[in-house]
Amino acid sequence: MSLIVMKFGGSSVGSPERMQRVASRIIERQQEGNKIVVVVSAMGDTTDDLIDQSKLLNPNPPAREMDMLLTTGEQISMALLSMTIQAQGGKAVSLTGWQAGIRTESVHAKAKITDIRPERILGELELGQVVIVAGFQGMSEEGDITTLGRGGSDTTAVALAAAIKADVCEIYTDVDGVYSTDPRVVKNARKLDEISYDEMLELAHLGAAVLHPRAVEYAKHYNVCLVVRSSFTKNEGTYVKEEAVMEQGIAVRGIAFDKNVARITILGVEDEPGVLAHVFGALAEVGIDVDIIVQSGVLDGKADFSFTVSGEDKAKAIEVIETIRTRVPYRETSSEDGLVKVSIVGAGMVSNPGVAATMFEAISSLGVSIKMVSTSEIKCSCVISGEQLNEVVRSLHTAFGLDTAEHAFVGGPQERR
Amino acid sequence: MSLIVMKFGGSSVGSPERMQRVASRIIERQQEGNKIVVVVSAMGDTTDDLIDQSKLLNPNPPAREMDMLLTTGEQISMALLSMTIQAQGGKAVSLTGWQAGIRTESVHAKAKITDIRPERILGELELGQVVIVAGFQGMSEEGDITTLGRGGSDTTAVALAAAIKADVCEIYTDVDGVYSTDPRVVKNARKLDEISYDEMLELAHLGAAVLHPRAVEYAKHYNVCLVVRSSFTKNEGTYVKEEAVMEQGIAVRGIAFDKNVARITILGVEDEPGVLAHVFGALAEVGIDVDIIVQSGVLDGKADFSFTVSGEDKAKAIEVIETIRTRVPYRETSSEDGLVKVSIVGAGMVSNPGVAATMFEAISSLGVSIKMVSTSEIKCSCVISGEQLNEVVRSLHTAFGLDTAEHAFVGGPQERR
Repeated sequence: MSLIVMKFGGSSVGSPERMQRVASRIIERQQEGNKIVVVVSAMGDTTDDLIDQSKLLNPNPPAREMDMLLTTGEQISMALLSMTIQAQGGKAVSLTGWQAGIRTESVHAKAKITDIRPERILGELELGQVVIVAGFQGMSEEGDITTLGRGGSDTTAVALAAAIKADVCEIYTDVDGVYSTDPRVVKNARKLDEISYDEMLELAHLGAAVLHPRAVEYAKHYNVCLVVRSSFTKNEGTYVKEEAVMEQGIAVRGIAFDKNVARITILGVEDEPGVLAHVFGALAEVGIDVDIIVQSGVLDGKADFSFTVSGEDKAKAIEVIETIRTRVPYRETSSEDGLVKVSIVGAGMVSNPGVAATMFEAISSLGVSIKMVSTSEIKCSCVISGEQLNEVVRSLHTAFGLDTAEHAFVGGPQERR
Repeated sequence: MSLIVMKFGGSSVGSPERMQRVASRIIERQQEGNKIVVVVSAMGDTTDDLIDQSKLLNPNPPAREMDMLLTTGEQISMALLSMTIQAQGGKAVSLTGWQAGIRTESVHAKAKITDIRPERILGELELGQVVIVAGFQGMSEEGDITTLGRGGSDTTAVALAAAIKADVCEIYTDVDGVYSTDPRVVKNARKLDEISYDEMLELAHLGAAVLHPRAVEYAKHYNVCLVVRSSFTKNEGTYVKEEAVMEQGIAVRGIAFDKNVARITILGVEDEPGVLAHVFGALAEVGIDVDIIVQSGVLDGKADFSFTVSGEDKAKAIEVIETIRTRVPYRETSSEDGLVKVSIVGAGMVSNPGVAATMFEAISSLGVSIKMVSTSEIKCSCVISGEQLNEVVRSLHTAFGLDTAEHAFVGGPQERR
């Protein structure tokens, strides 16, 4: 008998038929002799609808009341799921975040879980209940309702799995598992059987939207075994765990990409201590996320450096840099948008010196020039012009031996809450 | 400075415009120097929509999960109302039933409030906040979310007013106050300035759907001063309190009526002890509400008695009576539907012996025959055929001196939750 946490996202419960299918799946899993805790997100468009309603009444809705409003989405879906399970003859009880003992910081819209007190959950499991817990929400020390921010339901599931020492945490999604790259771009992308936490983190950060990075970090920290699998098929999913077996002769696990990247270059900056801290401190203050930072060598006491931001932030970033010119003198700036970042990820890269070279070769053989490069122990990212993105990804997929004949991708946009 | 509880029903907050109007009203009331606690119901059709969704998934939804589901309605409206008040420059905080300290029995769908722990409410009031509390809901000792059943938001408001010793509990509704009768039937019905708890209870039970009887009972028990007033106009409402001033020469406060009444008569029943208990015990067991019961004298050891039920329950009631025939022998039954009950209500009736006679005369002068009569100290009810109901009500309204020239009725169906 295993103790299993099953997490279902919003599109998995987005219609009565889907809700019923999820309920059958849960009952089946229980009848196999397992104890089941379910974490569920708000159904389909509920969250967006609630946000729209609030904007009509307050263009800047206060975060505390927004949390109060949005947490009803999960409360509705968990109550309906419990009813559906009971209609099919199962035993189920739904619990809000505070009822499930999920304590968080006293912060709204993006609280971190501080503690889980699982007594009620464990008691209900003893009674043979399927315990359905609202994802995405918790309670602060002051007794206020809080939310965990984006990816919150994944995090709830992993944190619960850690707290109750579950054998596995199953993340049900629209796709069969984690793929070597986006199957919408590469037709014969392969579903991965296993992937390590670190690789998954790189892929998650790099835009493979199957699992939220925070949930993966949490899983790594508490060593929770994750499985990403489809809520629509019975196919084996992808296991995410500490040590993932690498197929022989393959150094790269997957290929990720970010669209809509902009590059900004600052030329002729005085090479003084603290210059970088000034620039990136000013950008952080206004909430601009900087991704890759590259500094070339210093010539005549002057340096050039470049960094990337998302396309939406480009204009604002340049504005910020203008305002700090008196403190950080520089000659000029240049910028470019419509770029993309392509990354190869794999724990096997560490012991495989030729990997980056293979990547550069595959890209340049398509006549595409590489504008920026950034590497870590398990990944290598190149910023290139966006026009040939799909071609580049396909070429890399082949170059690193990731192609497969089978193709089990089940379409639809991937859900993310 | 007064401490005021303001209760708004679902149709008062049913659109963004209405929500904004309610918010302004609340801020105004606070700026007059009062401390404000608001109780709010679910918006417009929210509750019905949620019930419809649940029926799709479970035709007999379990009561615990139904409470979990339906309480989201109030949580949504209170969060949006708080945002709206803040958008208009006010300070507001919304609290769920459990956050507001509303404890109930461990019963679902119709729990009674056992206790209110208002510490949080009082603390927020000290900070100058408008405190918005979800109506209709509470928490059981086990930490489950419960609902108070129909009329629950009125009851929440009155119970809170009692717990925090509010100076007044204002029930905002679609109408200007409590009327001498339904203004849709009698054009010159008069709005009452005052009415006693007992009179209001009779009127509430008799179908004047402005205030839920439970809330009135609660108000009487804790001596909470109630005001029923319109959320759309600034008119003075109707005060409901212990001692209401009666205008000189008027014995009757108002006229109420119930449509869709059925009469069932059991003829030739053995006059043995416990016969009535058998019959009405059996009806209560299947959830049939019996209203008026009339027994005529006993002749040759046999009695006839009649009672009324709602039209929908008639067939089921006759069925029940068939099944108990072996224990309660009788000769035959007869029944009739399409009836109505008309009642005059007024504390002044006690000291005014001619009132019932005036009623009978007014009815029979229209050629309408009276089928059943039931009286109490402050009311007299007659069951008659439904066809001439409006004419009868108008005639009684005039006969008891209730007509007025003014007419301030603001239309729309009255809300009831």
